[in-house]
Amino acid sequence: MTDGKSKSEMSEDELNERHASKMAKKKAARDKILATKTIEKGLVMVHTGKGKGKSTAAMGLAIRAIGHGMKVGIVQFVKGVWATGERDVLDKFPDHVTIKAMGDGFTWETQDRARDIKAAETAWAEAKVMIADPAYKMVILDELNIVLRYDYIPIADVIETLKSKPHDLHVVITGRNAKDALIDAADLVTEMTLVKHPFRSGVKAQAGIEF
Amino acid sequence: MTDGKSKSEMSEDELNERHASKMAKKKAARDKILATKTIEKGLVMVHTGKGKGKSTAAMGLAIRAIGHGMKVGIVQFVKGVWATGERDVLDKFPDHVTIKAMGDGFTWETQDRARDIKAAETAWAEAKVMIADPAYKMVILDELNIVLRYDYIPIADVIETLKSKPHDLHVVITGRNAKDALIDAADLVTEMTLVKHPFRSGVKAQAGIEF
Repeated sequence: MTDGKSKSEMSEDELNERHASKMAKKKAARDKILATKTIEKGLVMVHTGKGKGKSTAAMGLAIRAIGHGMKVGIVQFVKGVWATGERDVLDKFPDHVTIKAMGDGFTWETQDRARDIKAAETAWAEAKVMIADPAYKMVILDELNIVLRYDYIPIADVIETLKSKPHDLHVVITGRNAKDALIDAADLVTEMTLVKHPFRSGVKAQAGIEF
Repeated sequence: MTDGKSKSEMSEDELNERHASKMAKKKAARDKILATKTIEKGLVMVHTGKGKGKSTAAMGLAIRAIGHGMKVGIVQFVKGVWATGERDVLDKFPDHVTIKAMGDGFTWETQDRARDIKAAETAWAEAKVMIADPAYKMVILDELNIVLRYDYIPIADVIETLKSKPHDLHVVITGRNAKDALIDAADLVTEMTLVKHPFRSGVKAQAGIEF
């Protein structure tokens, strides 16, 4: 019996026994919760925040979906976030992935607002076609938040499109500074927070990590 | 000239002009910072926090690395986090990915502490072999933080192994509750924070999203 003893006073056998009963309770609680989860529907997911991993996690979701035989559409609102390396991998699954790379350089690279707006509008038109197409089970709108932040496309149109999307379609939207209206419309929002970054200590962007 | 006018008083031409000069300044500042970043080295990256995307972003990094022709080693310390779907995709690149799936069920599934410790030790031994092997350019230790939290393997051994890793090797460690010693030893730490989750409103885990 382990009653009344502190963890450090217990033998290995007692620790094991205590662990087994704790975990059995945890599993029972978990199973009970899981039994209440019965709704299946396409989710609107947002990856935002200043940390790393917003687009990378979206890429991971694309791979997961492809692995399940789903068709994935990707619209890149900012060029160069997903580099040639990743595209080479995705190109191995031409039946399962369509990538539209819009916006050439965006903001500080182009320094041409009128051209940026045009590129954003074209990308958004492509995105709407994908979202309406029942063949797609996941549509990734990479860095859409940046375009929304500059008001290059109307947030109201985006919210309306998400509300009327096919029931089983998952939509993943990435980019820092997600608008409140988008967060309200989303099912799942994750904020990637920067805790520590090597860029500050002179380490340069490297293949396989940043691109 | 746009001087002295508020944004709402400006014509489209004035807005465009203002944007171009703002972005030119931003690009100049960015280029200046980039020029100071000259160090190239393998990074120790930690994805932690209660939010989604920790393992998914690691998967995205694996894909990025594979796309660059790097060899990636993956050790899963908890079973089932990366499902068959994702493994099917990674299996298309047998020359570039080695996956070791250790731990069968872990904690509340097995309820067997002694077996969990054994599984963790075996997985960690495999991980050390991969980390020491110069063929690998990225090693992902998926859910290592969970094993460390239960003290199933000694944190001191992990820190020591990371400190003596090959210079150009990237190591990615995932799992909530990253230990402070690990955060100290890491180059890049991202915390995934849960802002909104559909699980709370009865939506069940779905293929392509959670597995």
